[in-house]
Amino acid sequence: MKLTATILPIKVGRYSVALNKEDAAEIGVVEGDRVRIARRGRSVSASVQIATGLIARGKIGVYQDVAEELEIGEGGEVEVYPVSRPVSVELIRKKLEGKKFTRDELREIIEDIVENNLTEVELTAFVLANYLVGMDFDEIEWMTRAMIDTGETIEFDKGIVVDKHSIGGVPGNKVSLIIVPTVASAGLLIPKTASRAITSASGTADTMEVLANVNLSVSEIKEITEEVGGVIAWGGATNIAPADDRIIRVEYPLSIDPRPQLLASVMAKKGAIGARHVAIDIPVGNGAKLPNVAEGRKLAGEFVELGRRLNLNVSCAITNGSQPIGRTVGPALEAREALKLMEDRQGSSSLLEKSLGIAGMIFEMAGLTSSGYEMAKELFMNGKSLEKFRQIVEAQGGDGNVKSDDIRLGEERYVIESKFEGAVVDVINSRIVKIARLAGAPKDKGAGVYIHKKRGEVVKPGEPLITIYAEKGWKLNNAVEFAVENPPVIVSGMILERYPSFKYV
Amino acid sequence: MKLTATILPIKVGRYSVALNKEDAAEIGVVEGDRVRIARRGRSVSASVQIATGLIARGKIGVYQDVAEELEIGEGGEVEVYPVSRPVSVELIRKKLEGKKFTRDELREIIEDIVENNLTEVELTAFVLANYLVGMDFDEIEWMTRAMIDTGETIEFDKGIVVDKHSIGGVPGNKVSLIIVPTVASAGLLIPKTASRAITSASGTADTMEVLANVNLSVSEIKEITEEVGGVIAWGGATNIAPADDRIIRVEYPLSIDPRPQLLASVMAKKGAIGARHVAIDIPVGNGAKLPNVAEGRKLAGEFVELGRRLNLNVSCAITNGSQPIGRTVGPALEAREALKLMEDRQGSSSLLEKSLGIAGMIFEMAGLTSSGYEMAKELFMNGKSLEKFRQIVEAQGGDGNVKSDDIRLGEERYVIESKFEGAVVDVINSRIVKIARLAGAPKDKGAGVYIHKKRGEVVKPGEPLITIYAEKGWKLNNAVEFAVENPPVIVSGMILERYPSFKYV
Repeated sequence: MKLTATILPIKVGRYSVALNKEDAAEIGVVEGDRVRIARRGRSVSASVQIATGLIARGKIGVYQDVAEELEIGEGGEVEVYPVSRPVSVELIRKKLEGKKFTRDELREIIEDIVENNLTEVELTAFVLANYLVGMDFDEIEWMTRAMIDTGETIEFDKGIVVDKHSIGGVPGNKVSLIIVPTVASAGLLIPKTASRAITSASGTADTMEVLANVNLSVSEIKEITEEVGGVIAWGGATNIAPADDRIIRVEYPLSIDPRPQLLASVMAKKGAIGARHVAIDIPVGNGAKLPNVAEGRKLAGEFVELGRRLNLNVSCAITNGSQPIGRTVGPALEAREALKLMEDRQGSSSLLEKSLGIAGMIFEMAGLTSSGYEMAKELFMNGKSLEKFRQIVEAQGGDGNVKSDDIRLGEERYVIESKFEGAVVDVINSRIVKIARLAGAPKDKGAGVYIHKKRGEVVKPGEPLITIYAEKGWKLNNAVEFAVENPPVIVSGMILERYPSFKYV
Repeated sequence: MKLTATILPIKVGRYSVALNKEDAAEIGVVEGDRVRIARRGRSVSASVQIATGLIARGKIGVYQDVAEELEIGEGGEVEVYPVSRPVSVELIRKKLEGKKFTRDELREIIEDIVENNLTEVELTAFVLANYLVGMDFDEIEWMTRAMIDTGETIEFDKGIVVDKHSIGGVPGNKVSLIIVPTVASAGLLIPKTASRAITSASGTADTMEVLANVNLSVSEIKEITEEVGGVIAWGGATNIAPADDRIIRVEYPLSIDPRPQLLASVMAKKGAIGARHVAIDIPVGNGAKLPNVAEGRKLAGEFVELGRRLNLNVSCAITNGSQPIGRTVGPALEAREALKLMEDRQGSSSLLEKSLGIAGMIFEMAGLTSSGYEMAKELFMNGKSLEKFRQIVEAQGGDGNVKSDDIRLGEERYVIESKFEGAVVDVINSRIVKIARLAGAPKDKGAGVYIHKKRGEVVKPGEPLITIYAEKGWKLNNAVEFAVENPPVIVSGMILERYPSFKYV
């Protein structure tokens, strides 16, 4: 059927068109079916929306994605005919019925995901099938390989390529800013791609962006790594394992993270950059993603097994995730803390010891030494970590002479003091993150939280517990209001809540 | 944040807006989050899309659904701020983890579905959770009640209200056109709401529409039923159990029909019209939805139990669904066959016996007789069914004097003859449907298939097997081409397929 285009000036992330109900019936399709849209010898398959009332008969609503691909302008004529759904949809149905995917089937599905051939309904079905029905290790391996193959990859001509990854869930985890230069200063190659915050207050990419450009292409990542040994880039600016970004668009709104997807997503990124040795940080504890060491060990075993199948040497560090790492949460605060630690060569032990511990694991995996921690500590204390970090910052277009004191923090500040004397018994991850986000993080780089007292430290009445930083007064107010109602730092003896919550008259 | 509206002239079936990436970060939301859009004291909660490049900073893309609700015009200013997701999303997550819904939780979710508060991802998660995790009978009952309560209902002041339903899957099943008038002629009230075809060649509503108006409101359905005892209306024109329509939008593209949804959907519609006695037709066999009597019996037991909980008297008829009912498939052909059967008082036994059998079940359930079939047969043979059918057609705005020969069939016709002598061993449902749809059904009312020979009948070379009807020559050609490649009527001795498919030179 020939139809005339009405351009809908918005990108929806897949090929989609809107048809009048009568025209759709004439073509023989309903909502969710596919049509092929052809113009001047080129065509795409698009999913059908039924537009109630707004697309006249003989017209077709063409979203920008399709319009650009086929160079269709307002009033352009297109040929429209029904086609069947991608075979991936039938394969996903198979998984819903409990069947196992084959290698080729997973390849087919991942290709369709990368090419935006699946609707949101279909993509959700894939992710939920993996969540509820699950995958065995063959399937996880095949999915990982398909994710690597459908994106960009990096190959280094020489050198030992290593990487580190954290599964996330603990605030203030700026360890990569210390691990990457320490590892690179030992002559290893560490082309680290990091993520931005989705629900957290600052992703490693957000934090690094305070000091340097993180929007690097794959060729820039390769070039800089070959030049200075390491890089800290935003993975989202590359086309490495792009299926993952699409899948996250479904996982995030449902707050689920199916185990097969988690494993494949991490390992595909490591495989794509050609890493041989990979250290994975698995924070556990109250308020972390995993509740205890036993659960951490289970996940660690899965990472190691998947690594074995992909010929990647994996070691996992199960770490304490029950309170923030270091004393800061928020991009500028975190960048400052990491840089200051390297300048002073002393500071928060949770940050320093964790960073050196993981860097040391990598040294041992790569066969450089049998006492990795000591080697990492030596490089750090000799100023090699700092020197390398400055080189990396400069290579990424930042100021190689930057000092921690140069980093601008939010001007709007509020100190919350303790009303009691006692020891801190808890620093609640979720409240710290919420306060930092309300204050403007990660968008406002200077926003965040400084934690004066962590677990086990003693506090007197009037001493500060946290300082909230913001760039805008109204955001500071929102953050303070929440923090007063929901104390993030719990001092022994505090009354946590009262039932019923009445006041004496 | 204040933003200026760019109207996106399309309805997407829920409240949705598109934000510039920077503005979204400033507000603190990402794709899939919710924002509240406020204008002149009114507001709605909308899901966030991130528009890549097309919505400038300070602008907001407002889909028609939101624009109409808040009366926003091009360039109108709106206030936008982040809000949390509907609590339903958290409840759906609970089900994904295997938990049981409470009555209130299901009510909350069904309300959000009806009010279009859930995104496609969230709605898909609900349907798939029900498919993979399942529901117990408490939950199914609560979901059914919520579906009834969130839509329109009918209450009749007097009379015994009955209904019938088929779970579908067998082509040519025009039994409602005979059952409804037969039942109504006995003084029972049968306000039947039927569906249109989605994947079939003709739904009961499509078939009835050949003779009368089926787009009736709930008050028209009530009025006509009180006047003549019965009606055959399209359920989609009413607001009865509207959650079902939304849910189908997700089930259809995945070709799944979760058992809890199937049960609730059928029974909610029956409950909403105040039915006391309900007969349910469950076709089983090769090519039907359920493969055998045992599976049919299982589903029947579930319908009866759900009925018991809802105080509805349910009986199920497990019927033969392995070949089409009667000899016709397609709206006009089916209307003609049903009407002609009532005029002639003889014809296809599969159609006649099945219709009278189910009508008879209803008579017995309503306590009118202990020999229902005989009572139905008597009404039918006395011409009461035909007389009542004409009254119903007239009450629905059709011609009460219509004759079967008046019904116009497609002028484009093609007869497929048998090349062999033998007995028909199979009439393949899926192929018959595909041929009828390629010929133009259900959109072209005159399109469809007449089946000359059904299972067990003997055919000689040159005798017709099927006649294909179409309104347009090119559609007939497509249908014939498919039918020749994929014979729908299998004669004993035919070679079904050849491997490898070569020709002798």
